[in-house]
Amino acid sequence: MEKKEKIIIVLCVIATIAAGILHYSGANEIVGFFVAAVALALLAMIVGDATEQLGSRLGPGATGILQSSLGNLPELFVSIFALRAGLANVVQAALIGSILGNLLLVFGLALFLGGLKNGTQRFKSEPPKMIATLMILAVAALMIPTLAKELHTPAESHINNLDIFCAVILLVLLGANIYFSVKGDAAVVPQEKEMGHAEWSLGLAIGVLAGAGVGAALVSDWFVAALEPMMKTFGLSEAFTGLVIVAIAGNSIENLVGIQFAWRNQADYAVSIMLNSSLQIALGLIPILVLLSLFVLGGSVLTLVLPPLLVAALALATIVSAFVVYDGESIWLEGLALIGLYCIIAASFWWG
Amino acid sequence: MEKKEKIIIVLCVIATIAAGILHYSGANEIVGFFVAAVALALLAMIVGDATEQLGSRLGPGATGILQSSLGNLPELFVSIFALRAGLANVVQAALIGSILGNLLLVFGLALFLGGLKNGTQRFKSEPPKMIATLMILAVAALMIPTLAKELHTPAESHINNLDIFCAVILLVLLGANIYFSVKGDAAVVPQEKEMGHAEWSLGLAIGVLAGAGVGAALVSDWFVAALEPMMKTFGLSEAFTGLVIVAIAGNSIENLVGIQFAWRNQADYAVSIMLNSSLQIALGLIPILVLLSLFVLGGSVLTLVLPPLLVAALALATIVSAFVVYDGESIWLEGLALIGLYCIIAASFWWG
Amino acid sequence: MEKKEKIIIVLCVIATIAAGILHYSGANEIVGFFVAAVALALLAMIVGDATEQLGSRLGPGATGILQSSLGNLPELFVSIFALRAGLANVVQAALIGSILGNLLLVFGLALFLGGLKNGTQRFKSEPPKMIATLMILAVAALMIPTLAKELHTPAESHINNLDIFCAVILLVLLGANIYFSVKGDAAVVPQEKEMGHAEWSLGLAIGVLAGAGVGAALVSDWFVAALEPMMKTFGLSEAFTGLVIVAIAGNSIENLVGIQFAWRNQADYAVSIMLNSSLQIALGLIPILVLLSLFVLGGSVLTLVLPPLLVAALALATIVSAFVVYDGESIWLEGLALIGLYCIIAASFWWG
Repeated sequence: MEKKEKIIIVLCVIATIAAGILHYSGANEIVGFFVAAVALALLAMIVGDATEQLGSRLGPGATGILQSSLGNLPELFVSIFALRAGLANVVQAALIGSILGNLLLVFGLALFLGGLKNGTQRFKSEPPKMIATLMILAVAALMIPTLAKELHTPAESHINNLDIFCAVILLVLLGANIYFSVKGDAAVVPQEKEMGHAEWSLGLAIGVLAGAGVGAALVSDWFVAALEPMMKTFGLSEAFTGLVIVAIAGNSIENLVGIQFAWRNQADYAVSIMLNSSLQIALGLIPILVLLSLFVLGGSVLTLVLPPLLVAALALATIVSAFVVYDGESIWLEGLALIGLYCIIAASFWWG
Repeated sequence: MEKKEKIIIVLCVIATIAAGILHYSGANEIVGFFVAAVALALLAMIVGDATEQLGSRLGPGATGILQSSLGNLPELFVSIFALRAGLANVVQAALIGSILGNLLLVFGLALFLGGLKNGTQRFKSEPPKMIATLMILAVAALMIPTLAKELHTPAESHINNLDIFCAVILLVLLGANIYFSVKGDAAVVPQEKEMGHAEWSLGLAIGVLAGAGVGAALVSDWFVAALEPMMKTFGLSEAFTGLVIVAIAGNSIENLVGIQFAWRNQADYAVSIMLNSSLQIALGLIPILVLLSLFVLGGSVLTLVLPPLLVAALALATIVSAFVVYDGESIWLEGLALIGLYCIIAASFWWG
Repeated sequence: MEKKEKIIIVLCVIATIAAGILHYSGANEIVGFFVAAVALALLAMIVGDATEQLGSRLGPGATGILQSSLGNLPELFVSIFALRAGLANVVQAALIGSILGNLLLVFGLALFLGGLKNGTQRFKSEPPKMIATLMILAVAALMIPTLAKELHTPAESHINNLDIFCAVILLVLLGANIYFSVKGDAAVVPQEKEMGHAEWSLGLAIGVLAGAGVGAALVSDWFVAALEPMMKTFGLSEAFTGLVIVAIAGNSIENLVGIQFAWRNQADYAVSIMLNSSLQIALGLIPILVLLSLFVLGGSVLTLVLPPLLVAALALATIVSAFVVYDGESIWLEGLALIGLYCIIAASFWWG
């Protein structure tokens, strides 16, 4: 294990314990919220690292399955606790916010910083385009229930059934996607460049993953519990809280790792990481949560009928990032424009 | 004439006669509907073959004109009979459904099956991109009347005039498109690869075409007559019937032929066939039917003001398929995602 | 100075004087309107020439700054006078109309005429794609306030603040864009091909620019004053007047110059000019006018909340032209389709 990784784990353990103390003592919910958010972001990074290490022990096929099933573990826990707390609006916004955060904010930062350091960056290889295409297809599918509802079609009164059908199709595509990456076609699955990682032993990888998983489940609970007091204190809307704060804590931070690839002029790989994370949310996390909330969880139901502005923002972000990827070259100006678009979308959800 | 072609013609004659008997005897409208649907699909295939054979006798210029004017003959007849029967909603859905069927279902099947057999498929040549671009332009033009109506602009109360103007512009583009293919610029018009067809004599081609044309006119009448009883029996909505059933019987089946090109790893040509068929509907069949329904036919008027969800589905399908084409490479997973999107769109029209 | 340039200046002086006489004598407002429109279009051409000449004296960095700040001077003046006359609807339509005019009409004419003369045209270099990508990003940002308003989100009641935020972000991107072109990265900034211009002296360039600037300020006033009588006489709607007539007089005519590059088979440069002009409007002219109208000018306020059909037309035009650019090749048929789409959009605003 590298020194950097050890530091992150130590920091994470401290943050987790602190978050627990703050939660159970009921001392200060606002401080508790931010400590839990930091712990969650660190846990997301550790889960990502441990999944990768475990994958590299088990072969490329297993990596695909592991990353798809475990990569979004912290968000899954947060979403489940939030749904049980009746915060379906926050969860909807957080799921779309995770995608927007990856496609606009993190991707924008990668192009901006990478472009400033390396000048014009080229991504000529096929994986980024392919993932962008799949992302467009997934988002198009995700949009149908909202359109059917908002445009007052006859399907409006059967929207639960349409949601379920849509979720099942998305999960079929997720399964096909996992099967595809397990087969390991080098033309599409991004090949990780050597980053000089010290390899973990199998036991260590499993142990860290299990520990981080348990930690994520605990911290998610405390994070969600502190969410409503925090929103009240700062006067934040549910939509803004989900879209920006929960999304960044739960997903986007972990993808900041991708930025270092852009910094090292490995733009292709950076792009693949960010797009792939978004694709896992669209094909996996969202339909799984829809089905869980309908059939397993108590609490409020997560529907694919999103607020129309959220769907519009999702569509814009997907098309815009696809054009940036298809361009084949990028400059820091494009990165800045992506960040600008993210800020404008976030601002439009500011008021509650 | 090849053996396969002979078999199709024999089957078609049998189906046509059976459909006629079922129609005039009034025996069983549901069986009659399905027999007529099979006859119609076979007639569409034969019209396609005969047009191609006649074209190859008359030169590439004539082929373009013939394919544009006769290629959609069965759909034209079905649409005319359905409009006269007051089924404008079914016709609208069937026309858009033909485009969706080509861009998502048939294209998806081609990429899925071709990809499973041949691995990553490349379409690097220019024709598919060019046709995709023209398709986007045509769809953008087609969307304006619906937008003008649904967004309650002042044009709302002059929508018939806007329809006519829009239809005339689309027909001008159709004319330009035919002129372009007659000039035979090899960079854009897809060149048919040798498929080992035995050539028909001129007389045979004309005879088959004339016979299939008469057959299509007759069967279309019976098909439309059995449409309403079928919808009632199965409880299908007008929109779903048009979008899926009429569209597949009248247009998509014929394009299944394109799938065999993908199977033989001639992805460029397969893509060109499917996109071109959609373009002919958007530039030709739709504006012609709008003008015919306004000035010639009795019965209900076909307007370019479509149900908003239909326009949204058309826009999504066009953008999505354009990105797949522009990608330059495809994998079976993209094909599967296209099929999945088709299923979700079809499902959203299921309820009446 | 070339003979052609001298003729334009002489014509412009005559048109300006005639427009002034017609304005102050109150003789015939309709004739006055058209003379002022001609003078305005000529002034826009001269401002463009003089900016370029001044830039070539001061180096490529200065050219970028000058073109961004002065290139749209005539439109800026017209918009200011029209806002003070309470014609915010006309100004909104004219700004979007300038973008549509460039992306569809002028771009379409360039591809159509260039394609007829030169056959298939290729634009393989990077600048057109990059500018198209930035244009998509800018348009996505511009769409958010309208979406937030029309979809009745909570931001609806804070739309002025969202407008200001959005305008500031766009101006930051404008600044970054100017900085980028000042640094003169050859990969993105279009390099002007030698056109055999005689170079002007520094004094001449400044003098012509100052003269044209004063002329533009005067003529804009007269043009706006004659706008309402003209609209009444011909029964034109505010939206159509802005979208087509004001936009073509104030911006599009000047870009007709770009068509000669397409004619000379320099499609890359022609495309860059037209897209860049649109980008300057989206990133510069629009946010500047929004802020001016809120904080400096009297009269009506320019908001980023546009009529929905205008936003839809802007989105369609941007996506469509981006696909044409990304295609990498173009034929005259695509140019014709772009022109056709422009006509249909214009027609949908015909009724008042």
